[in-house]
Parts: sequence; structure tokens; C-alpha cells
Amino acid sequence: MKFSALLTSAGINIGLCVLFLSLYSVLRKQPANVRVYFGRRIAEEHGRLRGSFILERFVPSTGWIVKALQCTEEELLHAAGLDAVVFNRVLVFSIRIFSLAGLLCVFGILPLNYFGQDMRHKRIPSESLDVFTIANVEVRSKWLWVHCVVLYIISIVACILLYLEYKRIARLRFLHLTSATPNPSQFTVLVRGIPKTAKESCSDVVDNFFTKYHSSSYLFHQVVYKVGKVQKIMTGAKKAYKKFKHFTDETVDQGCRTITYRCCICGASSNSFKLLNTECEQKRGEADNVPSLNIDGEECTSAFVFFKTRYAALVASEIPQTSNPMKWVANLAPEPEDVYWSNIWLPYKQLWIRRIFTLLGSIVFMFLFLIPVTFIQGLSQLEQLQQKLPFLKGILNKKYYTTQLVTGYLPSVVLQIFLYTVAPIMMLFSTLEGPTSHSERKKSACCKVLIFTVWNIFFVNVLSGTVISQLNVLSSPKDIPVKLARAVPGQATFFITYVLTSGWASLSSELMQLFGLIWNVIRKYVLRLREDTEFVPSFPYHTEVPKVLLFGLLGFTCSVLTPLILPFLLVYFFLGYVVYRNQLLNVYRTRYDTGGLYWPIAHNTVIFSLVLTQIICLGVFGLKESPIAAGFTIPLIILTLLFNQYCRNRLLPLFKTFPAQDLIDMDREDERSGRIDEIHHMLHSAYCQFPDTEDVALKKIKIIGGDEEQGSSSGESTGNEPCEDPKNDLSHPTLKGLPVNRLRHAVKSITFLIRLQKRGLSSEQKIG
Amino acid sequence: MKFSALLTSAGINIGLCVLFLSLYSVLRKQPANVRVYFGRRIAEEHGRLRGSFILERFVPSTGWIVKALQCTEEELLHAAGLDAVVFNRVLVFSIRIFSLAGLLCVFGILPLNYFGQDMRHKRIPSESLDVFTIANVEVRSKWLWVHCVVLYIISIVACILLYLEYKRIARLRFLHLTSATPNPSQFTVLVRGIPKTAKESCSDVVDNFFTKYHSSSYLFHQVVYKVGKVQKIMTGAKKAYKKFKHFTDETVDQGCRTITYRCCICGASSNSFKLLNTECEQKRGEADNVPSLNIDGEECTSAFVFFKTRYAALVASEIPQTSNPMKWVANLAPEPEDVYWSNIWLPYKQLWIRRIFTLLGSIVFMFLFLIPVTFIQGLSQLEQLQQKLPFLKGILNKKYYTTQLVTGYLPSVVLQIFLYTVAPIMMLFSTLEGPTSHSERKKSACCKVLIFTVWNIFFVNVLSGTVISQLNVLSSPKDIPVKLARAVPGQATFFITYVLTSGWASLSSELMQLFGLIWNVIRKYVLRLREDTEFVPSFPYHTEVPKVLLFGLLGFTCSVLTPLILPFLLVYFFLGYVVYRNQLLNVYRTRYDTGGLYWPIAHNTVIFSLVLTQIICLGVFGLKESPIAAGFTIPLIILTLLFNQYCRNRLLPLFKTFPAQDLIDMDREDERSGRIDEIHHMLHSAYCQFPDTEDVALKKIKIIGGDEEQGSSSGESTGNEPCEDPKNDLSHPTLKGLPVNRLRHAVKSITFLIRLQKRGLSSEQKIG
Repeated sequence: MKFSALLTSAGINIGLCVLFLSLYSVLRKQPANVRVYFGRRIAEEHGRLRGSFILERFVPSTGWIVKALQCTEEELLHAAGLDAVVFNRVLVFSIRIFSLAGLLCVFGILPLNYFGQDMRHKRIPSESLDVFTIANVEVRSKWLWVHCVVLYIISIVACILLYLEYKRIARLRFLHLTSATPNPSQFTVLVRGIPKTAKESCSDVVDNFFTKYHSSSYLFHQVVYKVGKVQKIMTGAKKAYKKFKHFTDETVDQGCRTITYRCCICGASSNSFKLLNTECEQKRGEADNVPSLNIDGEECTSAFVFFKTRYAALVASEIPQTSNPMKWVANLAPEPEDVYWSNIWLPYKQLWIRRIFTLLGSIVFMFLFLIPVTFIQGLSQLEQLQQKLPFLKGILNKKYYTTQLVTGYLPSVVLQIFLYTVAPIMMLFSTLEGPTSHSERKKSACCKVLIFTVWNIFFVNVLSGTVISQLNVLSSPKDIPVKLARAVPGQATFFITYVLTSGWASLSSELMQLFGLIWNVIRKYVLRLREDTEFVPSFPYHTEVPKVLLFGLLGFTCSVLTPLILPFLLVYFFLGYVVYRNQLLNVYRTRYDTGGLYWPIAHNTVIFSLVLTQIICLGVFGLKESPIAAGFTIPLIILTLLFNQYCRNRLLPLFKTFPAQDLIDMDREDERSGRIDEIHHMLHSAYCQFPDTEDVALKKIKIIGGDEEQGSSSGESTGNEPCEDPKNDLSHPTLKGLPVNRLRHAVKSITFLIRLQKRGLSSEQKIG
Repeated sequence: MKFSALLTSAGINIGLCVLFLSLYSVLRKQPANVRVYFGRRIAEEHGRLRGSFILERFVPSTGWIVKALQCTEEELLHAAGLDAVVFNRVLVFSIRIFSLAGLLCVFGILPLNYFGQDMRHKRIPSESLDVFTIANVEVRSKWLWVHCVVLYIISIVACILLYLEYKRIARLRFLHLTSATPNPSQFTVLVRGIPKTAKESCSDVVDNFFTKYHSSSYLFHQVVYKVGKVQKIMTGAKKAYKKFKHFTDETVDQGCRTITYRCCICGASSNSFKLLNTECEQKRGEADNVPSLNIDGEECTSAFVFFKTRYAALVASEIPQTSNPMKWVANLAPEPEDVYWSNIWLPYKQLWIRRIFTLLGSIVFMFLFLIPVTFIQGLSQLEQLQQKLPFLKGILNKKYYTTQLVTGYLPSVVLQIFLYTVAPIMMLFSTLEGPTSHSERKKSACCKVLIFTVWNIFFVNVLSGTVISQLNVLSSPKDIPVKLARAVPGQATFFITYVLTSGWASLSSELMQLFGLIWNVIRKYVLRLREDTEFVPSFPYHTEVPKVLLFGLLGFTCSVLTPLILPFLLVYFFLGYVVYRNQLLNVYRTRYDTGGLYWPIAHNTVIFSLVLTQIICLGVFGLKESPIAAGFTIPLIILTLLFNQYCRNRLLPLFKTFPAQDLIDMDREDERSGRIDEIHHMLHSAYCQFPDTEDVALKKIKIIGGDEEQGSSSGESTGNEPCEDPKNDLSHPTLKGLPVNRLRHAVKSITFLIRLQKRGLSSEQKIG
């Protein structure tokens, strides 16, 4: 690839970017798109944009950039949670280190590379890109020490910055944990692997165990049931409710909590179905009143156990309970909104097998993906392709622009399309793994996508670029540094175009929200559905974090060898900083948070990138026969690894568990201020086994069928009912006489879910 | 090597073994050697063997074998601890699995191998050993499925036996923990990384922290000081005491605890030095009386913290205390006899660096060892050696017996001599690592020696046997199975002679205790020292466990391929079973115990051996072009790994920490029976920072110098003094006026340690 081709490509992409950004700044001002571009704001802040028609709406503006930049970290933390701040810090770190690297490499190393050999230079635009890489420096050059020094500076500054960020995020995480609003998950332990007994019910077993061994701190518990058919019926009924809403004859009386419905199908019994407001409360000892909870013979395998203090919950979660490590496994519970209810009842003893098989599955997927990637790589290595498939020679040799297009653009675009399938598949794998929380699932998917991306974009491209028939790359690890050293400078073309196409373009499309925009139009004008204010997507960390980290990897590995990539990367990071901040503030809604657990992933990836860079440089210095530079690189590798080990010892444990000292202090503070009773009360309604994570305080239905008297007399018990799962509703004494089929039919055909008006609920939540 | 040569070698070794065993059975009956062969019995049971001269003493007998076999597991557990039982179970497991493997392979596979090719067989004695290996089976033989089936049977039976042993040992460990005698280490936590403060003394800091955060369960603490010069002087003085014993004019009065000494050098002040019996007690709040404990400016970095219950100690050790993971690091303390005092004051923040550097050190050592091993390997591959060094041709070709000797024997013997240096060096590395207990140090050394042995005996021999100039073995992992498959059958000769020489001979020398015997003679008749009943060595698990596991590895890998090794191995294991039991019962004394932690090491090694065997068989089946057998081997590998993962999940956690349930039950039982106060009292004298681990309740000296009045009046406080370290003695208020040099001189020149008569002390201990 010539320099001019690169400039053409860059020009096209800059043009496209500017176009998209301008388009965005216009589109975001249209009231019709307000749901697409301000999902979070509408859902959480209920701000209305003015809808009047003025010319300003159609003039591109840069106000949103200013707003995104002006927003402070506290605002971001408040609006989008700790994970968003961590993501933001990853971008800040990248901007800082690559600004420095860019300065050093473009002004220090680029001239060295360019004048590295005694040769007659052509005019710069028609110069090959290889002239700007280290490949142009002659063997045994006395200027290689400059490369080594720059490598040292970049590595050391990167480590210092990493350490500062790590400390900062650890502090933020600590503040997040000790924040003013008490978090029910800190008082709660998720117990799995509850042993089955023939005599006692599951609830009794849990109660007895914790009363016996944690009597001083045990509060109460809440059994999690296997989500079976009833749950599915409930979900189906909810959908039916939406459809038939218009036909129901409802009188919603929010003051009085008893609501009478007219059945939409039979139309007859006006009062035989009742809506009871169950506030998801479960009192200790409540289970004793219901003789047998798991009446259907379905096993219960897990339970939420609530403790009086945070410290007691931590202790219960950290200490193995019994001499069988597969029974009574306790872990700190995820936050209520974060619970992944579909997985939480999975038998604990299955999990390790699931984990192994999903691991195997992702590895197989990773390697099967080689096939399209190898094909794409073939496109950018036209000569090799022509050798393999001689009939292409005629077509490709003739047209210059076709060649330019094929080598410069097509590979990245095709790869991009294939890559779109990766995230959903990895998410599926992560779901099968059996995580108990949404955040854990997303984090696990993030790791998988990251490893996948680094392997398939970086390694396979680099290694199979030089030896087209690959798959035995792993068979000779000793040669890898030399192979990489030979290949990385040669792959500069591909990586630069990758930054231009995949990097810049993905930011533009992220900003434009093309899918959302199109779906919005279709829903509004084709399907004519009502707007759904509830559905606001959450930020796709599992695709964006790996993307940013991959560009970081490219930046580090290319910095010293092919510095030409750095200006393009810097533009990407700057643009990303603005775009992602804007999106986090306006578009996405944060429902769950890992509490900064993405940072250790980012840290490890950066350390990996640094060590990889150093190994590649070692190989390059070896190829250039510069023993001094190569010799000085080895201690740098050791120092970087030692630094990583230090961070693992000093900072990583803070991301794994909580320190006793601070939890005890918090507990005491709560006790002193008398707030502890309020917290204990709150715990009763914190967790509710319901698959709908959208509506936190969603009202639940209790059907008391058949008998009218029973129905009307049970109005007394409203507002204080335990959060029983739907199966329990069917096993309610009054329902026992009825055939299950009839009940199911009734459940299916009746609309029985009330959704509170969103506005009122949210404002209540805010006050709470 | 011919079959006849093997038989010759076996004959020689059997003869030697019988000779040594007979010699042992005679020597053990001589009263002069009783300290060598019955060290443990004399030290612990005080049994005296009859010393009269009768003819029986000089007749070889087999009584000891019967005794060793008759001893039950309970007796072994009682006499030599859990580790001895684990070691015994490893041998039992080996005997069981190799009996089965021997039966199957010798009667099933050996004939198949022998008749594997259409060839004219010579008479068996002059047959080459290769005829008995799988190398003799022809390519695409239809009998290879037999090998595959035998491999399946061995693997599955090995897994079943492993699982049963694992469960059994987990149960034993559990019983060991919950045994009747309360263990002070269960109530104690070793806290390291205590932060320094300018205002408070270290003791106050510890006291404040635990009073604040563990007020309900904190009992008291005991600070560990850096063992500096004073400690060295104490040790030196103790040596001086032994020398000058005859000159001292002592009046030991055990009833009254105040003892007056006459100074052996100046001879003057009869009453100015006092011996006070300090029972290693430290009362809470005692520290307050001494204004500044670390008066020398030496930092204290660790402390033993005692808790009221076992559960509280466990909780404190499992939960990170503060938000800095390098501060207030708490771990369950080792048992009092097990504490490695020289390491316990090491700053915690050093440890990770120490660990990394010792790891690097052992890896470097492991690879440097290649040099002698490669040389030895050259000896057994005479042809290759002759090619390299042509001048040897003349010498070696001529003499048949020289060749026989050189190929059959010399390599193993030379290797053996080199290997004797490995254990001490690895022990040194493990000491530098900074473990806090003797058992941890020995376990760490065991792992290092194991990896070293497996690498240097098995892999280097196998791999460099085929390609003499090695070191790039690791560079192509993909080829390793094929390489191994080619090499292992070829190395049968070496392994069989290794079993004969190293295995059998090492057992004989272990039984004979040659070093002990010689040292005993020298001490008695040359140096004329008095017998030291105290010094009884503890069992060298760090050399013996790797040895037995290596033979297991050889057995598994050779079983299907070269079954001829199995009978020799079985003899080794049977002999080892008898010898080691005898030694554990009679010779070695158990002072510390890991509580069965050697078993996970053994388990992992056996799994590694199994998988390695399967991989080698996969390679062999591939070479023999038997796709069915090779195809069936792959699921076996996966199943074995899954089994291992299951054990890691199900049983390994039991070896890492204690279950809450059982600890709480034990605590309650103690509280109910009222024994808890007794235990708390015992804790006061449990840990005493003194380098001499021999005498547990060793009396300590307190010098109150200069002032005679003070000396006599302080007699009141005897028997109740805290276990202060020697430095404190120097910083005692009454000593402050004196120049330190004079004090040191005084300390050096005076004999001031009393050793209680051993008999009385031990019997007291037994009663206690």
C-alpha cells in the first residue's frame, strides 16, 4: 500500500465521520428520535425536549461535544455507574499514554525509520508504507538504541499511569461500596447446594441450619424456586395482557388496593379474580404456616439468606459452611436489579461442568472462526492469493482501483460483518455458564470476546499473514517472537486500515444508533405501536471494552515499530472519549453494575500488550543484530511482570472481596444512627423472584379463584403478603380443589398484571 | 541391553538387598546402635532394649518385617502423625494399582509384544529387551485394541482408587482436626504486616485493632520480635554453657525457683544474676507496664493473636482485615512445635518478591542440572557417544563387560550422586521463600524436588536420549507426544536399571541408615561425646515422597508400552511399604505435621502421570497407524481431566480451610463441657519465641544484673512472667543504666540456661 492510498482512505473516513457526526447533531434534535438518543434521560430524568419547529433543529451543531466534555466524573458516576467511569478511565489512560507515545514515535522514531537506509526516496505520497516502519532500518544500525529508549519510556510511563488509575478506581470502588444508600446485597448471601431431606421442607432446612450456626446474626431467608411452567405462563399472560388491554373492563383504584376485573373471555364473574398488592415481603416463620412449600415435588436448590450486619453476611459468604464443599455454598448475593433469575436456581453441582463445556465451546468457536479470517487475510495479500488461485491474476492485475479497494478496505469490512456475530454467541456461552447476575454474565462475555478479538484480529492476522496455511502456529512457541517481529511491521497496512474502518466507523455507527433509529421508524410508522418508555438498552460493555483494549494492543505493539498508526489511533481515542461519554449520559441506562470489575481486565490486557510489545521488539532487535538493544529489553520484560505481580498483590484483592474493617465501621455507624431497623425492614422487599427486571416494584397478582366469599374476605391480608413465587399461588389452599388445567386456562386468558404509572413510581424511587 | 544383562543386574541387586536387610536385622539388635535404629522409640517411649550378650543378636531375623506389617493404621497415626499415614496410603495405592497393572500387562500385553512381529525368536536370555516393548508390535496390528483396553482399565481403576483414598484421607484429616486434644493453633492467628506508628508501640497497635474490630472474640496477643543479635548471643551462650558446665558452681533448687549462680569468669558476684522461671506467659495489658517495647528501634512486624473460639480465629484468618491487602494479613497460625521462628518476623511485603526469586532460582537450577544429566545420558547411548568422541571407540568396543557395566549401571549411579545435592538445595530455596512453619517449608521443598525429579529424570532422559543435543525440547510442544512415543519404549532399559539401582538400593540404604551408623560410631569412639537423646531426625518427606511418586510415574508410563518394568516396580513398592513403615515407627520422630497436605500433591502427580501415559499411548497408536485405538484414547484423556476437576471441586477445598459447621460444633462442645477456660489458660504458654524447637517448655533466663537487692526482691514475680524476648530483657528498667557492651559480655560469659531433666519433663507432658 502506498502512502497516497492511506491518505485517500483516511480522507474518505474523515469525510464519513464528519458527515455522520453532523447528521447525528441534527437527528438528535428531532423530537421523533428523542427515544433513540435520550433513552436514559427520559427513563430516569423525565426531561422533555422542546418540540417546536425552528430552523435551528436542522443546523449541525457541536453543542453535544461540549456537553460531553464538560460533564465531570461525579456526574458520570451518578448517571451511569462505576463501570462507566472505569470505561471512561480506560479511554483517558489510552489518550494519555498514546499522546506521549505519539509525540516520541512520530518525531523521534519516524525520521529514523524513514532515513534508516541509504536509498533514494521517492516523493512521499508515492512512497510505500514500509518505508516508515522499522523494517527500513538497516541491520546493525547504531540508531536502534533510540527505539529501545523509547520502548523503555513508554513501558515505564504506562506502568505508572496504570498504577495511578488502579489506585483511583480501587478508591472509587471503595466509595461506591460505602456510599450512603445502604445496599441490600451487602446484607444478603445467596446460598446454593441446599441438601434435600425427606422430612423437612427446604425452607425449614435453611432456617434450621442458619438458626443453629449463625444464630446471632441470621435474620430470615427467602427460598428461590425452580422457574418452571407456571413462570412461563405468567410471562405469556403478561404478553396477552398487553394485546387485550383495550377490551378489559378495568377499574384501577390505587387508593384501595382491591381491584375487580371482568374476565375478558367469559365475561362473567366480576369478582372472582382479585388483584392483591404483594409487596414482596416474606416474614420469618411465614413458611411454617404453609405446610409444604415445594408441593409439586420440584426441588429448591437455593435461597437468599439475610443477615443483621454486613460483616456477618461477608463472614458467611467467605467461610466454607460444611465439610462438603458442594453443599451450603454461600456467596454474597448480587444486587436486586442485577439478579439473573433464570440461572439462580441451577443446581450448584452442575456449574463446574457447565463452565468447562462453555470454555471448550468458546475455544472451538475461536478456532473455527479462523476460516473466514484466513480468507479475508488472503484478500490483503494479493500476491499470495494470485499464486494460489491463478485465474484471479487477470482480473486483479488490470484494474488499479479494484486492487486498491480490495487491499485497503474490503478485508476490514468483511471481517467487521463476521465480528458482529461474535458478541451474541459469546453472550450465549456466558449465559449457559450459569452466572447468577447480569453483570457477571456480561463480564464473562467481555472476557471471552476480548480473548477472541485479540486472537482472531491480532494474532491470526499477523501470523497467518506471513504463512498463509496456518493452524500450526501454536506448535513452535520459541519461534513466535521472531515470527511476530517479522510480521508486525509488515501488517501495518492492515492495522491502519482497521483503525480507520473498524475504529472510526464503529464510533460513528455507535453514535448514530442506526439500528435504534430504523427500529424507531418502523415501530412508529409501520407497526404503529405505542412508545415503550421502559425499554432502554444498557451499555454493551462486552463489545466496547474489548474493542478499546484491542486498539490499545495495536497501539502498543505498533508504537515503536510502525509509528504511523499512532495519529490515527489518537483520533480514535479522542473521538471515542467524546462519543462514549455522550452515549453513557444520554442513551444507555445502567441497571446493574459490576462495581469496577472491568478494570482488572483492562489492566491485565494492557500488561499483556506491553509484554507482547517488548517480546516483539526483542525479536526485532535480534533480527537487526543489535545485541545491546535486545539485551536491555529483557530486564524490561522482567520489570513489567514484577510490576504486574505487585499490582496483583497490592490492589487486586480489593476487587475480590470487602475489607472487614470498613464493613464493621459501616455497621456500627448504621447501628449508632438507628438506621439499621429501617434497613432490615427494607430487606423484606428487596429480592423478588420475578423474571421481569424492568419493573422493580412491579405489582403481582394473586388469583383467588372460584369462591367469591373467600375472595372478598381475603382483602384484609393485602399489603402484607409474602413474596411467594407463582407456583405457590397455585398451591394455595383455596386453589387445591380446582383442576390445574382450568386454572392455567384462567391464568392464560386473563389479563392480570397492573403496571403502575411509570412517572409516579420513579419519582417515589428517587425519593426513597 | 540383553535380557540376560537385565537378569544379571537384577540378580546382583537382589543379592545386595538381601545382604543389607540381613545386615540390618543383625545391626538393629546391637545395643550400640539403638540410638540409630530406635531414635523415635527412645525419645518418645523410653523403652530400653535388653543389652545382654546372646547369640540371637548375631542371627539375621525377619521379626521386624512382621512387626512392620502388623502395625495398624491407627498405631501408625498415633506414632508418626497424619503425614506418615498419607505416605503409607500412597504406597498402598501404588501397590494396588500396579498389582493390577502387572497382572494385566505381564500376562496380557507382554505375549502380544513378544509375538508382535513375524520373526525368528532367539533364546529368551539373549533376546534384546526391545522385543518385549510395544516397539515390537507391527504397524497396523489388529491387536492394538488390547493395549487400548488395558489402558482404559488401568486409568479407570486408578481414578476409582484415587477417589477412595482422597475421601479416606479427607476423613482422616477431619478426624485429626477434631481430635480430642485441643490444638492451640486453631485458636491462634498469625498477623503480619502490622503498620508502624510513631505514637503507639506495636503491642498497643495490635491490641487496639483487635479490641476494636474483634472485641467479642479477641483474647490477647503476643508480639513476635525480629530475631537479632541478642538472640544470637543467647544461642552462643548456650553453647558456652555446655562447655563450661563442669566449672560452674551451681546450686539448682527446683522447689524454690530462685537459683543463684557463681559467675564462671569473674567468680565474684554470687547473687547478682538470677534465674527466673518464665513460663512463657504473656498477660493482656502486660505491655502497658513496659513503656516502650521496641526500644532498639527494631520494628515488630508480626504477632500471634489469640481468640476465644476456633470459629472466631478462622473468621479472622479468612476475611481481609483492611483495605490494604498488605497490612494486617492474618492466617491461621502453625502449631507451636511447627513454627519456623527464623522466618516468622520477615516483613510481609517482602514475601512475594522472595517467592518469585526462589521460583526463578529453582527453574534456573533445574535447567543447569541438564549438563550432568546429558553427560550421563551419553553414557547409556554408547553409539552416539562414540560418534561424538571417536577416540573412545577403541576402549569401549573391546571389552564387553566394560560396556555392559557402563550402559547398565554407571549412568544411574552417577545420576544418583548428583541427585543427593538436590534436596538440600531445594530446601534452601524453600527456606528463602519465607514460610512460617517447618511443615510448610518441607512441603514446598517436596513440590520443588518433585518437579525437578520428574523433569530431570523422566523428561530429560526420555527426550535427550533420542536427540542428544537438546535444550530446545520445549520449543515444539506439538511434536512432544510423538517424540515421547518414540522414546519411552526405547528408554525401558534405563528405567528398569533405574528402578533396580536407585529404587532398591535407596531403600536398603534408608533402612541401614548408613550416615547415622557411621556418625554414631565416630561420635562414640572418636569424638567420645555423650549421647544426645534429643536429636532425632524427622522423616524426610521432601525426598521420599517425590521418589515414590516418580516410580509411580515410571510405572504408569511404561505399563502398557514396556510391561517388563512392572515386576521390578512391584518389588520396590512392597519393599518400600515394609521399610518405610519400619522407619516411621522406629527411627524418625514427628514434631510437626502438615495434616495430610502431601496427598493433593500425590493426587496431582498421579493424574499427571495418567494423562501423560494416555498422551504417549495416543502417540504410539498414531505411529502404529491404529486410528481406532488412538480415537478411543482421546475421550479417556478428557474423562481423566474431568475426574481431576471433580476432585478439585469436591475434595480439595477440605485441604485448604476448615468448615464452619464443625468448628462451631467443637467450640460449643468445649463450652458445654467447661473445658474452654482450660484451653484459654493453655494458650498463654503455647507459643514462645525461642529458636530451640527441641525443648518445648524450655526454661528461660531473666538476668537482673548489678543490683543485688533488686535481684532478691524480684523473687516474688517468678512463675508469672510474660514470655518476653531476650531484647526485652536488656531493655528492662533495671538494666537501662548499664552499658550494653558490659551486659553482652556478662551474658556471653555466663552459663545461664537450665535444661530440665528430660525424663521428668516428658512424662509431665504426657500427663498434660
